[in-house]
Amino acid sequence: MDTTAAPAEQDIRPEDLASFPFQVPHEELRRRAAALQRRLVDADIDLAIVQSNADVGYVAGSILDGWVLVPASGEVRVLARRAASRVQAETCWPVERMVAVRHLVAELGAMRVERGRIALALDVVPAADYLKLATAMPDATFVDLTHHLRNVRAVKSEWELDNCRAAAQQVIEAMTTVTYQVVPGHTEMDAQRLAEGCLRAAGHQGIVRMRRFGGEMFYGQVCAGANAALPASLDAPLGGSGQYPSAGKGPSRRELVAGDLLVLDLMGCHNGYLSDCTRVIAVGGIDAIDRDLLEAQAWCTGVLEQVAAAARPGVAPSALYQLALELAADAGFADRFMGVAPDQARFVGHGIGMEVDEYPFLARGFDDPLEPGMVFALEPKLVFPGRAAVGIEDAFIVTETGVEALPAMPREVLVAG
Amino acid sequence: MDTTAAPAEQDIRPEDLASFPFQVPHEELRRRAAALQRRLVDADIDLAIVQSNADVGYVAGSILDGWVLVPASGEVRVLARRAASRVQAETCWPVERMVAVRHLVAELGAMRVERGRIALALDVVPAADYLKLATAMPDATFVDLTHHLRNVRAVKSEWELDNCRAAAQQVIEAMTTVTYQVVPGHTEMDAQRLAEGCLRAAGHQGIVRMRRFGGEMFYGQVCAGANAALPASLDAPLGGSGQYPSAGKGPSRRELVAGDLLVLDLMGCHNGYLSDCTRVIAVGGIDAIDRDLLEAQAWCTGVLEQVAAAARPGVAPSALYQLALELAADAGFADRFMGVAPDQARFVGHGIGMEVDEYPFLARGFDDPLEPGMVFALEPKLVFPGRAAVGIEDAFIVTETGVEALPAMPREVLVAG
Repeated sequence: MDTTAAPAEQDIRPEDLASFPFQVPHEELRRRAAALQRRLVDADIDLAIVQSNADVGYVAGSILDGWVLVPASGEVRVLARRAASRVQAETCWPVERMVAVRHLVAELGAMRVERGRIALALDVVPAADYLKLATAMPDATFVDLTHHLRNVRAVKSEWELDNCRAAAQQVIEAMTTVTYQVVPGHTEMDAQRLAEGCLRAAGHQGIVRMRRFGGEMFYGQVCAGANAALPASLDAPLGGSGQYPSAGKGPSRRELVAGDLLVLDLMGCHNGYLSDCTRVIAVGGIDAIDRDLLEAQAWCTGVLEQVAAAARPGVAPSALYQLALELAADAGFADRFMGVAPDQARFVGHGIGMEVDEYPFLARGFDDPLEPGMVFALEPKLVFPGRAAVGIEDAFIVTETGVEALPAMPREVLVAG
Repeated sequence: MDTTAAPAEQDIRPEDLASFPFQVPHEELRRRAAALQRRLVDADIDLAIVQSNADVGYVAGSILDGWVLVPASGEVRVLARRAASRVQAETCWPVERMVAVRHLVAELGAMRVERGRIALALDVVPAADYLKLATAMPDATFVDLTHHLRNVRAVKSEWELDNCRAAAQQVIEAMTTVTYQVVPGHTEMDAQRLAEGCLRAAGHQGIVRMRRFGGEMFYGQVCAGANAALPASLDAPLGGSGQYPSAGKGPSRRELVAGDLLVLDLMGCHNGYLSDCTRVIAVGGIDAIDRDLLEAQAWCTGVLEQVAAAARPGVAPSALYQLALELAADAGFADRFMGVAPDQARFVGHGIGMEVDEYPFLARGFDDPLEPGMVFALEPKLVFPGRAAVGIEDAFIVTETGVEALPAMPREVLVAG
């Protein structure tokens, strides 16, 4: 709430915290901080102040309300507005209870950075927070932390990759169940709800984080036929009407009929890490689906496999994007690829991890080469306005020599009811 | 994605849009804009630039990626980065396709506000967006739109209230089902999943919006026993461990046993509007529950009813907050009320609408009197660390003479299994 008083805290008993099932390993947190600190040194930044859920979750291993202070050298410290003893149980860094920006400013003074270069993730930190800090510290220079932090986060450890793999298993379970159970007469919303329940039962944390301002994802999207081809404000190839304008995207309440292609674009989430996978279900059997849509679907699968085969350390994400655009142009799909004209399609893939829109984007301008440990989802899709959308998506880990796909359903069209 | 190219748009056929089931009435949108414009005039603001999902949804009736321009006088205009024809179908305001901040700046120049007073909701707009605009318009004065917009949104129309009532019905359905089905041996997570599925089946849009930076709500929270008493970073009386540190709150995987009090704090969401309601379920029957917890629960219900009876137009929310604190002190619950010491408890209620943390807060400093059409959730709760939490929550509409409770389950303890 918007009040300023500093509440006292109730105590947390050690036995309550002992039941926390998945603490982030401390060596993992130390590795992350060290990687960020190397970038701070390179960029001549004295201190990074980290404060969005995904960013503090990454650096501190705890979702906390407050600030994580990462100096270019020295120990990371956590200032928590609430539940400080809980945060302390979750993180390896020292936690202090601190409520107001004036406390933060006093701390920064004690750290002797009041005339230094201080970095904030300006893409997510609210303007009011930035202005409050900048006003209180007129001699400091504030710079953008965004790209440094996103670049560090883009390269995953084995521990992180295992969480992505577990997230991918959740999607296999959900897609299997939906394929078995969905029949003509179910609505798109029924299929979405079924998928959500399966994901939750498989361990999904419910919350899916998206970095972009206004980005809202909800387990993914389940749409069929013309609704899948309807664009939304979300920056994604497919949209959907949603149940209400206030949802802005996603399933409609239309009943599925034989001949519908039901697109399942689902995200798993295990221990904070996401997976992202798209398959299509032929409602009413494969013979009910128009041949040209099946051909378009097969073409998307071919693009996925060709682009994935070209991905390896040293290759620029933008080159993979360009390859996909060329394949679309060659196939005469220029005006259907990713929902827009091909020379203007904005991306064919995106990094994924604690957020669904991480680095690297397979898009124009992303020329820094792939590195081992990066994870990206590749999602060639075609939109037939007023009729249907087709496409496929798999996530890939960049290895020393190529890529490894996250676990997923077979790439064929799934057949239901 | 973070690319700058402006994609061409696929067309949307009128018949696709005709299926949108709940367009916001245009007279409703016009009323909202007029109310905001009156405040802009009073505050000597030339133009408001509206741009978060909840705020653009409120003013334009469409969740859009772009900017809604509200001049102090004259017509509202929408600049949409994506899906402009869809946005046009959802709103009564003229929509133009516009991608980059430089386009926005050119528009503002054409509107002759380049030396004017321009308001942004600085509490939600990212610092980078603000800085880009402020740099491009060095002669403009930027001021905060937050309180003006939140004050306008706090007073609901009958149309909005009907959506809140429908949201409250969703929660009745979910609580009824959970009460019938939950038994000892189910986990907290099982109960949460069951509640989520019921809410979704009843029409919940899935997405729950929270204004506060870092605020993440997911249908509400279902926790039992000691886990309900565990604080989280979320600014709420109860917390919960969550499945993972990355969730940060909510149900654990502990199995329920007879004698547990299962707290259901659930939010409905119909057509973008939320409801908020808390009830407790006695797992294993009422006789299994400790008598002092039942007494504490009954006390919370009494506080809810006494505070609600004192609420009417003209009463300050802060006075209702003070009343609740005094009742807690009188009852000897000073150190358990709302999770913290009573003189520091931060709130006992919060406005609710398109976001779960709207004005008015029943908290210190909220001295502007209640007005008819305001909606607030009142949630007296007591925390017994290491043991249990109890409490109740209902949402109330401020009427001409008092308050009207949103539809809800009876206020008695619910009995399961």
